Amino acid sequence: MVGIGNALVDVIAPAEETFLAEFGLVKGAMTLIETERAVELYGALDRAVEMSGGSAANTVCGIASFGGRAAYIGKVNGDDLGDVFGHDMRAVGVTFHRPEGDHDTPTGRCVIVVTPDAERTMNTYLGVSSELSADDLDEGAIAASKVLYMEGYLYDRDNAKAAFRRAAEVAHAHDRMVSLTLSDSFCVDRHRSDFRALVQDRVDLLFGNHDELLSLYETESFDDAVEQLRDECGLAAITIGPDGCLIVTPDEVVRVPAVPVDRVIDTTGAGDLFAAGFLHGLTTGKDLDVCGHYGSIAAAEVISHVGPRPLVELRSLLGDG
Amino acid sequence: MVGIGNALVDVIAPAEETFLAEFGLVKGAMTLIETERAVELYGALDRAVEMSGGSAANTVCGIASFGGRAAYIGKVNGDDLGDVFGHDMRAVGVTFHRPEGDHDTPTGRCVIVVTPDAERTMNTYLGVSSELSADDLDEGAIAASKVLYMEGYLYDRDNAKAAFRRAAEVAHAHDRMVSLTLSDSFCVDRHRSDFRALVQDRVDLLFGNHDELLSLYETESFDDAVEQLRDECGLAAITIGPDGCLIVTPDEVVRVPAVPVDRVIDTTGAGDLFAAGFLHGLTTGKDLDVCGHYGSIAAAEVISHVGPRPLVELRSLLGDG
Repeated sequence: MVGIGNALVDVIAPAEETFLAEFGLVKGAMTLIETERAVELYGALDRAVEMSGGSAANTVCGIASFGGRAAYIGKVNGDDLGDVFGHDMRAVGVTFHRPEGDHDTPTGRCVIVVTPDAERTMNTYLGVSSELSADDLDEGAIAASKVLYMEGYLYDRDNAKAAFRRAAEVAHAHDRMVSLTLSDSFCVDRHRSDFRALVQDRVDLLFGNHDELLSLYETESFDDAVEQLRDECGLAAITIGPDGCLIVTPDEVVRVPAVPVDRVIDTTGAGDLFAAGFLHGLTTGKDLDVCGHYGSIAAAEVISHVGPRPLVELRSLLGDG
Repeated sequence: MVGIGNALVDVIAPAEETFLAEFGLVKGAMTLIETERAVELYGALDRAVEMSGGSAANTVCGIASFGGRAAYIGKVNGDDLGDVFGHDMRAVGVTFHRPEGDHDTPTGRCVIVVTPDAERTMNTYLGVSSELSADDLDEGAIAASKVLYMEGYLYDRDNAKAAFRRAAEVAHAHDRMVSLTLSDSFCVDRHRSDFRALVQDRVDLLFGNHDELLSLYETESFDDAVEQLRDECGLAAITIGPDGCLIVTPDEVVRVPAVPVDRVIDTTGAGDLFAAGFLHGLTTGKDLDVCGHYGSIAAAEVISHVGPRPLVELRSLLGDG
């Protein structure tokens, strides 16, 4: 598969609940920030850890960790953080091209505040990742991949939105599957009509969570939202936290339980890795409930430690090899 | 207290034992490497995590985490990794000045390979940290600190060695205590005669571990080495892994047991944090056995997770507040 998204390095720091209030942060959400705010937040946070992140990037790494073939399209600079991002892609075997040299716009970063309840609050300085445009697409990779996977966050910039549309055209021209993750309920709120049109017309497989689905259909009833989704989308996988996930098609709704976790440490990457597991199942010809179970396995691994990517080979967690 | 050392960001990656053999790495040791080798090793390693490190830097952060006042002298560049290093110092309240702007020589980094037995093997590209010289010393901070703490690694560069000597002179001129950590048995091997002379003439408090002490006295008998140490040094704290530590003075040898750890994850920073605990006890007027116990508490915390610095406030681990 091939993923397209904002290439970011995560800066992960623990903080108390009071930190969120003090800096006016919306818990659990992703907020776009500018340099000044990034400096302010980072300066106020305690000791941090730096690890490669980015929603779709986490997903393609998950696919590779399951043993699948994956490529990634996104932009980093030739600075230290770009080095880190590029290394971590190559290290897990994801095909990714990054530019040489340090240019004007730095590699994007996501300052993630992890509160004691393991919930993450994300503050993203997009940097050079926001310069992704249709010109950056590797159309050969898109044509050759079974699935194109894109993050809703791309819709926050017009040039990336154009890249998104172009990528979907190329994929469909080659009879490939187009998948989208809704990314964040606030992101859905910012681009609701676009996302609704995409789900109806262009998206073959939709990922999202409970809150994002409610936001997409502007309802407070999850059942209503699921019914609307069944009418509009051929296949969707909706996570509902510790309650597992629902796999939704026009014909059926399948409930798959979550894989239990001893202690949830950091929920960063949970949705990204769920998508990785689901897609790995789908591209290896598994039934939908097995796809959901693979998603739950990957999500359970990533929330049991700090950081948005698996720390073990996910293939080793599959009982059936 | 004030610490002087090589300012490094750690790049920590897991690897199998076979990785060490394949790249000719000496397990448990610190090896100095050049850019090309750094690129080669990093390229061959799996996904990594980036966190601030540096031996004496870890120690001053430990002191601050216990609630003590600490300053640090070391050199970083104005690049991303320099930002990370500077942030993590400020975040724990350590006084540290870093330069503005990105200059020619990058911030130093230590590529740390962690094998499944939790042992770390360090490969250090010193970068701009090796440009530390006597001109970089904040003599006011040295004069004002109860203890000057320096890492043996400084002896790997002549200009830093000169800074070491000057710092010790300033400290003694103000009746301050001068402490040294031997850093690594191979480092001791490289600078044995210098270290022997320092221990006899200039060092008031020596830190080291079992292997470093054997190397210092070129003996295979730990008892012999301890006896020689008693003759030459006023105070020393020697760690012996899971067996705890020995506190050695001309008058007595005190054995302090280690604090048990459920599961040892990564031994990076164990010695650095032992020194932090010991120094915190000493500078707050505790008896030597209590100083050793504080050291063991801090070491136990840092080996129970990935990374060379505490993840909790060390003061919270002291029963006596």
